Formats: sequence, C-alpha cells, structure tokens
Amino acid sequence: MTQKILQALNGKLSGTPPIWIMRQAGRYMPEYRALREKHTFLQLCHQPELIAKVTELPIKAFGMDAAILFSDILVIPEALDVGLRFEDAIGPIIERPLVQGESLKHLHGQSMKERLQYVTEGIKILKSSLKVPLIGFCGAPFTLASYMIEGKSSRMLSKTKKWMWQDPVSFHALLNRLTDCAIEFLHMQIEAGVEVVQVFESWASFLGFSQFKEFSLMYLEKIIKSIKPKVPVILFCKGASSFIQEIAAISPSGISVDWSVDLASLRSRVPQSIALQGNLDPDVLHAAPSVIRKEAKGILNAMRHDPAYIFNLGHGIAPDTPVDAVKVLVDCVHER
Amino acid sequence: MTQKILQALNGKLSGTPPIWIMRQAGRYMPEYRALREKHTFLQLCHQPELIAKVTELPIKAFGMDAAILFSDILVIPEALDVGLRFEDAIGPIIERPLVQGESLKHLHGQSMKERLQYVTEGIKILKSSLKVPLIGFCGAPFTLASYMIEGKSSRMLSKTKKWMWQDPVSFHALLNRLTDCAIEFLHMQIEAGVEVVQVFESWASFLGFSQFKEFSLMYLEKIIKSIKPKVPVILFCKGASSFIQEIAAISPSGISVDWSVDLASLRSRVPQSIALQGNLDPDVLHAAPSVIRKEAKGILNAMRHDPAYIFNLGHGIAPDTPVDAVKVLVDCVHER
Repeated sequence: MTQKILQALNGKLSGTPPIWIMRQAGRYMPEYRALREKHTFLQLCHQPELIAKVTELPIKAFGMDAAILFSDILVIPEALDVGLRFEDAIGPIIERPLVQGESLKHLHGQSMKERLQYVTEGIKILKSSLKVPLIGFCGAPFTLASYMIEGKSSRMLSKTKKWMWQDPVSFHALLNRLTDCAIEFLHMQIEAGVEVVQVFESWASFLGFSQFKEFSLMYLEKIIKSIKPKVPVILFCKGASSFIQEIAAISPSGISVDWSVDLASLRSRVPQSIALQGNLDPDVLHAAPSVIRKEAKGILNAMRHDPAYIFNLGHGIAPDTPVDAVKVLVDCVHER
Repeated sequence: MTQKILQALNGKLSGTPPIWIMRQAGRYMPEYRALREKHTFLQLCHQPELIAKVTELPIKAFGMDAAILFSDILVIPEALDVGLRFEDAIGPIIERPLVQGESLKHLHGQSMKERLQYVTEGIKILKSSLKVPLIGFCGAPFTLASYMIEGKSSRMLSKTKKWMWQDPVSFHALLNRLTDCAIEFLHMQIEAGVEVVQVFESWASFLGFSQFKEFSLMYLEKIIKSIKPKVPVILFCKGASSFIQEIAAISPSGISVDWSVDLASLRSRVPQSIALQGNLDPDVLHAAPSVIRKEAKGILNAMRHDPAYIFNLGHGIAPDTPVDAVKVLVDCVHER
C-alpha cells in the first residue's frame, strides 16, 4: 500500500510526491455520471455501498495515492435538520436557512453519531478493499454557518456577514455548535478507519484579517487540537493565502493552498513541520497535454526534495474536465 | 477645494486622510433610487447631465474628499459593439459574448473618442461645479475580457480561463486590443478634466501567480506607463493581496486593497512612494454606529502619520447599506 501521503504529512517523504485531487470522484468521470443517472447526488452520499463504490472510482481509473471519502460538507447541516437538497443548475439548497435573531435551539440535541452513521458504514466497507490511505473530511464551522444562513452558494455572503457584524454573540454560538458537530463527526470517521482528515474552509476569503482570526481560525484551532493527536489534519482555506502565517501558527499537519501563490516561496514562510498541498490551477486541465505536463513539472521542480509536499489542484476539479487530462496529470506526477 | 487625495497620491499628506467610497453614487442613496425610477442604469451612464448629477450626489450628501465619475467599467465593451444591458436581479449581460476560436476583427476600428464622447461631456459639466477632485476610471483588460467572454458575472470564469489555457495567443490579442481602448479612454477622461484615475482589475484573483503576471500585470504596467506621466493611477486588484509585491513593482501611484490584509503590515512591504487605499470591510456598515467607528478608528490609527494613505472600503458599497452608516463613517474619518 502506498503510504506516501502519510510520509509527506510526517515530513518524511522521499522520491516522487503523492497525488490526489479534490473532488476526484466526480462528474468528470463517465463512471460517475453513469451512477448519477440511477441515483441522485444525495443518494450517493447516503448509501454506504454507493459511498464506497464512488470513492474507489478514481483510484481504479487513475491510481491516485489517496482516496477521499465521497460525501459533501453539507451532511452536517443536513444532520441538524435544516433541510438539504441539490438542484442541478444551482447547487446545494438549504430549505430552512437560519435567520438572524431567531433561536438556534433546534440545532442542539442531534447526535452526529446517529445521524451520520451511514458515513461510518461507508468507511468500513471501503477499508476492506481500498489499497491507498483514506482521507475523511468535513466543512469548517464558518463555511457551514455561511451555507446555513445564505441558504445556497452566495457571491457575497451578505446575510452571514451582516449577522456577524450585528450580533457576534449569537454568531459565535452557532460556530461553537458547528465546531462540536465537526469534531464529533471527524472522530467518528477516524474510529471507522480514515487515516487523514481535511477540513474545508471554502469561504474564509470573505473575512477581513481580524474577523478571519476571530470567526474562523479560533474554531479551526479547536478542531486541530482535538483531531491531530489521532490523525494528521490538512486545512484547506480557499483564497486565504494572505492569512498563511496565521494558519501556520495553529499547526495543522498540512495546508492545502490555491493557485494564487508560488509554492516554493510560500515554503520559505511555512516550516517543514507543516506539509504543503497543491496547487495546480484546475483550469490547466483544459489545456493540451504538453501544457498540463509543463505546468505540473513546474510545480514538481519547485517542490523537489521537499519532504512534506502533496501534489493536488488548488481547488476541486471541474465537472467538464476531460478525463484524459487527469490521466496525463497523474502519470506525470508519478513518472518523475 | 480639498486636495487631500492628490497630496496622499504624492506622498505629502498631513493630518486626517481623505475618504471616498467605491460605488459611492449608488443604490444605497435615496436620491439615486429616485433617479433610477425615471431612468435605466445605462441611461444614467449615457447622458452627460445625468452622469454629472449622479456623480455629485454623495459629495453633496456626505462630503467625501473626492468624486468618482459615475459610469461602469463595461462602457468599453459596449463601445466595442458586443451589446450590453443590465438586468436588475442578474447584473450586466453581454449580448454577443466573444467565442474562443472566432475572429476578433469586429473589435477593431471603433474609436473610443467617438463612442465614449458622452463620458467626456459628463466630465466637462462636472468640472464647472465640482468642489473636490474628480477620479476617472476604467476596467482592466483581463477583467473586461472576462466579462466579454463569460457574457455576465461568473463564479469561476471557466470559459475565460479555458481560452487562456488553450489559446494564449488570441487571448493576448484580445488583451492588447482592450489595453489600447483603456489607454485611449483614460487619456480622453484626463483631457476632459479628471485629476486621478483608478483601474479596476476585479477578477485578478482567478489567476494563478504566473498567469497574473502574464495576463494581467503586463497590461496594467502598459496602462500605468502611459497614464502616470499625466495623472496619478490607482490600481484596484480585488483579492490580489498575495500579488502585492508584484503590483508594487509596476509602480502605480496607489494600490487599493481589500479587507483581507492588515494595512499597517502591508505598508512594511509597499514603499511610501506608493499610496495605499482601503480597506474597511463594506459589511461593517451594517453594524451599529459604535462598531463602525471602532473599526474605522482601528484602520485610521494603524495608518496615522502615513503620508500616502486614502481611506476607502475594501470593495464597492453594498446597495442595501443604511445611509446613516455612511454619514457615521465619513464624519468619523473627518473628525480625527
């Protein structure tokens, strides 16, 4: 079994770096689209056998060095009974979004252990067959809160930020509840067998410098402190490269960065006790194979000999990515 | 006449900094909404008397230290005949978006001088009555290209980036044409009387580090080299704080930054020959007056004694901002 991702997260990588791709089990794969003709997205998330099957698709097709559990960050809000559905053209929709000023009492009392049992069952099935390490994940509290307040993807997070500025006390109460859920859920995943977890703070870039520290980082730190004694924790803070030193200060095992930064110069500001993961622009995968190879080699060369580096895209792979491009990329990283 | 903004852009500010607000003549003002009941947004942009009237609204109501020309970055694409309309719930729509692989010949031949005459007429009317410096502006080439390709605001700029990666030669041809238009348009504005210009690169954060340099920065530098001998040029690169050193290297007169950075520590990386502008989170204006004052004072204190600082928001003011909050903010900056 290839353990390169664990070596990198322990700063002990030698030779070619491991590669996995955010959203690697997704719509760009014909095998996935075939499954989606028979099942809704949420059915794929809810049924343990399907979770396992989808999670393994890209490993079988391309041979990535780690699998990421097939799921969605919004399973925690769903478990908190705010109502979740997915519409093809829109994305996720929260049916009963949280309203500033109203009680948050209904978010208390649910046990992740009960509600998200299906995830742990999926992990257990996977563990019997999977040949590579399995990465679990969850959404970070601020990002989950944003979805629960906005009700769907949002360009500005206006309602969320209004709430944050107008009533920080209840906003913190919400973040605290979501932090407890995230920690409970991650421990469940670890007990079921995941060997690494990644926490997705997708909306951190909407926060100012001080607010990022107060409303995001503090909770991320709490999660890391609870989880890192058991398995490595990778933080993905999209668009947050200006916060990189603050993120490094809470000592995640790894930081996943987007393509706005030059990885090699970032390394001069992040100690090698923290792995770096990334950061190819996902849109490169629309280019010719020679361009894909050139861009990937550029990153690989810059990070050569780094004992704590994991190759990935800077963001999730796009649904319209050509399948062949993924093969070119994975092979290129492996052939060095 | 208050010349504080020019003093700041020359590194010679003393006392309280000047304040202006991006999109300060906008929907949050009841006077503006009253005009919008009689005219479409594009009518306000097209008629010189209305341009002048709208531009002056916030100066009369709040006493900002500079006026920004009321217009839209998409008047250049409109002048290039791609068709522009605005829909209330959606925003701008380009009726004939550019298609990768098709000829760009139809974008050549139009003279900004002819097509955008109405803007210079608006400026001339303004110059006879305005008591504060007038800021002209235009969209940066990459941002304009993105709108012209996507056809509307976009979350991912997928088509634009696909084009960039698959056919960089024709993408550069497009950027070159838009750079020429931007330079011609800015010189027209300067001849008509604007004393400062701001260039809006709103979508730079979609670009990776190398691509930002190749597809954005190179063209911004060309614009600065042509314009700065005449009037100061402020660059606004939303979400591009990770590129700040590269932006500083092309020597704009000022850099407008969003709220993701701590201004005082940014100053340690940007020489005082370049003014810094920003960077209050626009959503702070939804908070209580005491919070608005606290947040504004935090920035003012951090930048106290900086001879090249201009107070602004980190992004355009939101349409649902309470009018009273703007008064609180402007007064707070002025009273120091």
